[in-house]
Amino acid sequence: MKTKVRIQLLLTGNELMSGVTTDTNSNRFAEMLARLSLSVYRRITIGDDMELLVHSIQSMSKECDVLLVNGGLGPTIDDLSAEALGKAFNLPLTEHAQALQQVKNWCERMNAQLSAANIKQAILPEGVGIIRNPVGSAPGFYIEKNNCLILFTPGVPSELEAMLKGDIPALLAQKFPNAQSALIDRYHCFGIGESRFQQTVDNEFPDWPKQVELSFRAGAPTLEIKLTTHSPEHHALKQVWKEKLFQLFGDYFVSEGEQTLAGAVVALLKHHNKKVTFAESCTGGKIASMLTEVSGASEVFEAGFVTYSNRIKSSTLGVTQQSLAQNGAVSETVAKEMLLGALHVSGADIGAAVSGIAGPNGGSAEKPVGTVCIAWGSVEQHQCVTFHMPRSRQLFQLMVAATALDLIRRQLLNIKNPPDYFGRKIVKNS
Amino acid sequence: MKTKVRIQLLLTGNELMSGVTTDTNSNRFAEMLARLSLSVYRRITIGDDMELLVHSIQSMSKECDVLLVNGGLGPTIDDLSAEALGKAFNLPLTEHAQALQQVKNWCERMNAQLSAANIKQAILPEGVGIIRNPVGSAPGFYIEKNNCLILFTPGVPSELEAMLKGDIPALLAQKFPNAQSALIDRYHCFGIGESRFQQTVDNEFPDWPKQVELSFRAGAPTLEIKLTTHSPEHHALKQVWKEKLFQLFGDYFVSEGEQTLAGAVVALLKHHNKKVTFAESCTGGKIASMLTEVSGASEVFEAGFVTYSNRIKSSTLGVTQQSLAQNGAVSETVAKEMLLGALHVSGADIGAAVSGIAGPNGGSAEKPVGTVCIAWGSVEQHQCVTFHMPRSRQLFQLMVAATALDLIRRQLLNIKNPPDYFGRKIVKNS
Repeated sequence: MKTKVRIQLLLTGNELMSGVTTDTNSNRFAEMLARLSLSVYRRITIGDDMELLVHSIQSMSKECDVLLVNGGLGPTIDDLSAEALGKAFNLPLTEHAQALQQVKNWCERMNAQLSAANIKQAILPEGVGIIRNPVGSAPGFYIEKNNCLILFTPGVPSELEAMLKGDIPALLAQKFPNAQSALIDRYHCFGIGESRFQQTVDNEFPDWPKQVELSFRAGAPTLEIKLTTHSPEHHALKQVWKEKLFQLFGDYFVSEGEQTLAGAVVALLKHHNKKVTFAESCTGGKIASMLTEVSGASEVFEAGFVTYSNRIKSSTLGVTQQSLAQNGAVSETVAKEMLLGALHVSGADIGAAVSGIAGPNGGSAEKPVGTVCIAWGSVEQHQCVTFHMPRSRQLFQLMVAATALDLIRRQLLNIKNPPDYFGRKIVKNS
Repeated sequence: MKTKVRIQLLLTGNELMSGVTTDTNSNRFAEMLARLSLSVYRRITIGDDMELLVHSIQSMSKECDVLLVNGGLGPTIDDLSAEALGKAFNLPLTEHAQALQQVKNWCERMNAQLSAANIKQAILPEGVGIIRNPVGSAPGFYIEKNNCLILFTPGVPSELEAMLKGDIPALLAQKFPNAQSALIDRYHCFGIGESRFQQTVDNEFPDWPKQVELSFRAGAPTLEIKLTTHSPEHHALKQVWKEKLFQLFGDYFVSEGEQTLAGAVVALLKHHNKKVTFAESCTGGKIASMLTEVSGASEVFEAGFVTYSNRIKSSTLGVTQQSLAQNGAVSETVAKEMLLGALHVSGADIGAAVSGIAGPNGGSAEKPVGTVCIAWGSVEQHQCVTFHMPRSRQLFQLMVAATALDLIRRQLLNIKNPPDYFGRKIVKNS
């Protein structure tokens, strides 16, 4: 269905206007609607201002089929949404039995006394239906006015999320029985940017079918690729074109769905029954931290070494004084000795070692800020690369850590082609 | 001046509607305006839709004194803002000499050929003035229509940021010569929440002066406290009330302005000429990673140990088999042995060691998910605490790492009062 449905979003809350809070709820609405092949065409954000809120509900509901209202359902005096709906359509406020029951149930679960503030959350305009809130005290509610379905939802992201996965899709499906659900597949790539990806697709696949939407969400360290179809009959077509993408960029696809780059590395290590270790200088523990954010990392990871000073590189990992003196800490010789030391001390099968200059200080003409040596592999099969990637300190640390994980991933998958993401950044390779 | 200035914000871009991009520019506008004691009362966000854009510019400019438009200045066909302004007020588009010069200068700096796409960025409605863009190719522009100052700004955050620090405040000051600049002081607290902070202030200081605005930005791991005054004559008053806050919460204030908790710890270590080390199990390198995100960390940090398995706790840090067997890895005995081992191996003066259960798996009745032992201090003066803080895996790791840094901060400052942030969460203390 090419739908002509018009949907607007009204966000309320002083914290959204003062710069205190970044609005992430709009993205949550967009993602839920995208699964129904729907979208918002206009979004209005205002503070906790009764007059403006009443006016906005009245005027916006005349202009669209669905008005999604977010925020202002809490127990405090600033939470105006129920009262505003009442004023907008002359609806008296009364205690709503189902809403009160939900608030009571919530208090019971939380072991909390039912307070006047809680009861306020069950005082709603006459005629509304309830949107259940599985994780918070405030129920959502909805009403049909001006031939527009108006839904009121909580500003707390986790509570909104629960409703977007709960009652709301069914309410929308009821209003639009012909809406088609979208099938969205998500993949994550490392080491290739959005513009190069898109350009290559444009060049290689001038006949890309319009039934399969290709879209991106740029992130650090990975790029998210989305393939969307709006009808089950296009599922096979999507598979075909997904395969073509994999043929083109396969080495750069690291994971699917919710899995992160680190999650993919943990899964691969488990699959190969291997243990991993890291010797980190400039990343300062970031590689180990990323890996151990993955639940189950303990099955594949026993030890990491943050060897920030030369003295510790020697005493903990056995890097020789001679190598440090002759080549400096940021050198392939030292990175390799760090790797072999970490493999030896930890008993791990595979690993990575990094030494570089994160900046903003500490660079030289020969080794400017952003220079880094990464050694990776096993005792028998390891290599090292030096490249230059000037970024802010934190972004440098994140991207170097992700690169180390990706190089381990490539070795585990036995990918022979060297990644071209070093591009012109590469300085040396041994 | 209690201003009656009405300001609206119009954001444009399909990426803002599709859920691909989170809008952070609104916060940038809010922060710039707050420095002039101004604020936005309504924000409208729409996609790249010419008709809607023209209509929005027309209608919004009739309702306010300043209309800030963001996005749609780029070189591609989706970038509609200049054309929309032309259509909205019947202004012909012409090549703007100053804009063209700026685009040319930018290409020169970038070593890039001047392209047709670049030149498009200098084709502007007749009568506009230029807002200089120090970091990108697209100049901003402004015009006065319907007695409303309309400003067009780029969607790229770094480019917008540069204009908000550059030409825009002067344009607003010119329009509102009586606007008063605000003085905003920012502080960061660890271990106290917004609601408890506000409640304590309400109880202790019923006479808090309205000339000194107190506001918060909740974050993880720290809470930002802002004190705002709108006139230089209130500066002394702010100092007085800041001192009162410090008397009440002084132990919880960790840093000021741009400094992070880890930054404060690095500064204190430098001040005391001490080196720090970490032995991490459940945090997996997060403590070291947070510390080494601070530029200059190498002066105070030489070594960190991510000892994830029992075997490595023994081989690297000398934790005894007996302690592990009798108490388990998550025990105060083991955490203390990890700390002493790390201090010994690294030669550092002070440190922290953590062992806990990050979850979601691995808990038991006796030691549920969220249980953690933290040992901290020096060889001569160290202690250990066990507490229970069930959170998502990543939030647990972040908050435990921040707690370890804060405990080191407290020891360096010789704060005798134990932090009360463990609250009822504490299980044991030795």
